[in-house]
Amino acid sequence: MTGWFITMDGPDGSGKSTQIQLLQQALQNQGYEVIVTREPGGTAIGEQIRSIILDVNNIEMHGMTEAILYAAARAQHVKELIEPALREGKVVLCDRFLDASIAYQGVARGLGVDTIEGINAYATGGLEPDITFFIDINPMVGLQRKKDQEELDRLEKETLDFHQKVYEGYIALWEKYPSRIQRVFGEHSIEEIHNQIIKIVEEKIKN
Amino acid sequence: MTGWFITMDGPDGSGKSTQIQLLQQALQNQGYEVIVTREPGGTAIGEQIRSIILDVNNIEMHGMTEAILYAAARAQHVKELIEPALREGKVVLCDRFLDASIAYQGVARGLGVDTIEGINAYATGGLEPDITFFIDINPMVGLQRKKDQEELDRLEKETLDFHQKVYEGYIALWEKYPSRIQRVFGEHSIEEIHNQIIKIVEEKIKN
Repeated sequence: MTGWFITMDGPDGSGKSTQIQLLQQALQNQGYEVIVTREPGGTAIGEQIRSIILDVNNIEMHGMTEAILYAAARAQHVKELIEPALREGKVVLCDRFLDASIAYQGVARGLGVDTIEGINAYATGGLEPDITFFIDINPMVGLQRKKDQEELDRLEKETLDFHQKVYEGYIALWEKYPSRIQRVFGEHSIEEIHNQIIKIVEEKIKN
Repeated sequence: MTGWFITMDGPDGSGKSTQIQLLQQALQNQGYEVIVTREPGGTAIGEQIRSIILDVNNIEMHGMTEAILYAAARAQHVKELIEPALREGKVVLCDRFLDASIAYQGVARGLGVDTIEGINAYATGGLEPDITFFIDINPMVGLQRKKDQEELDRLEKETLDFHQKVYEGYIALWEKYPSRIQRVFGEHSIEEIHNQIIKIVEEKIKN
């Protein structure tokens, strides 16, 4: 793998999409070839799986089904899009990756971190991001932002207690993987966050 | 679990559906409450996953994605339908189960039996059928029957070599689990096969 795999994760409404767009622009201006993608989804098959996962009518979905569906979409994503792009030397910017499964299904749904890591070992084949940005935002603030922007999906509609556990899951991941996961503060200004992110990316890529 | 979990498996076109209908009727006549279901599918969410798996347009689907999607549908099936029915003392007749994943994705797709068993341990939580009927039919004969009946789905459209490997996968499973898996010959008459099946079921249920 000669490219760079950078993921952006954090609670709903943390501003990931905005920061991905800004980072994409900055890296393209420096001459990098950049692919922007997201999970669940990122491929035609992954988007079909995404529709099932996020459909607000699928209230019967068991937590384990949800966890395995995320892994299925991820398997397709890694094989069809991420690995080929990295082999071609591109920068892949991905909105959410395995950390989200650990925080949402492993911690908040209570399936356990080991279970989620076990299922996903099949999906990722061991691929890990070079850098993960954890955009740290109070989940209540994030959710309020989401509600103001758009209709909530099946996971966003979960209880506040659920979103609080997701947040604790992210904090635990950041403590566990301090060299991979970089925390930035989602309540700082968009520009401040972007400057912090681009500085970290440049240091990593140039060293 | 106080009910009975019976699965019917084998190559495409082996006559599973016909035998399930006959077995359902026979058991209902004896007073059993019988649920008939199928994989992939069996629940509303599972049927959505089935559509993705079997869609002939999803030619980009990686073998691992396919394997994980089957497991996701199975997780929902076990939790939402099979386990509750067994707890209520019902007989569950299922058209395909884990053995199909082992034969199709583990052996024919070459992902390996251990991989498929590993993924599915999460999906089934260890649930195994009380009896599995392997309807043994030459895969060429089975496929020809299918072609005469209906349009082929994405897996049925695979090469003959693929279907030959699926068959070998079933034979290996039957050799590995001789007490659970009962082989019946799919080229015998419908009535002969049914008589053989009902005899085995009655022996198992009454002892």
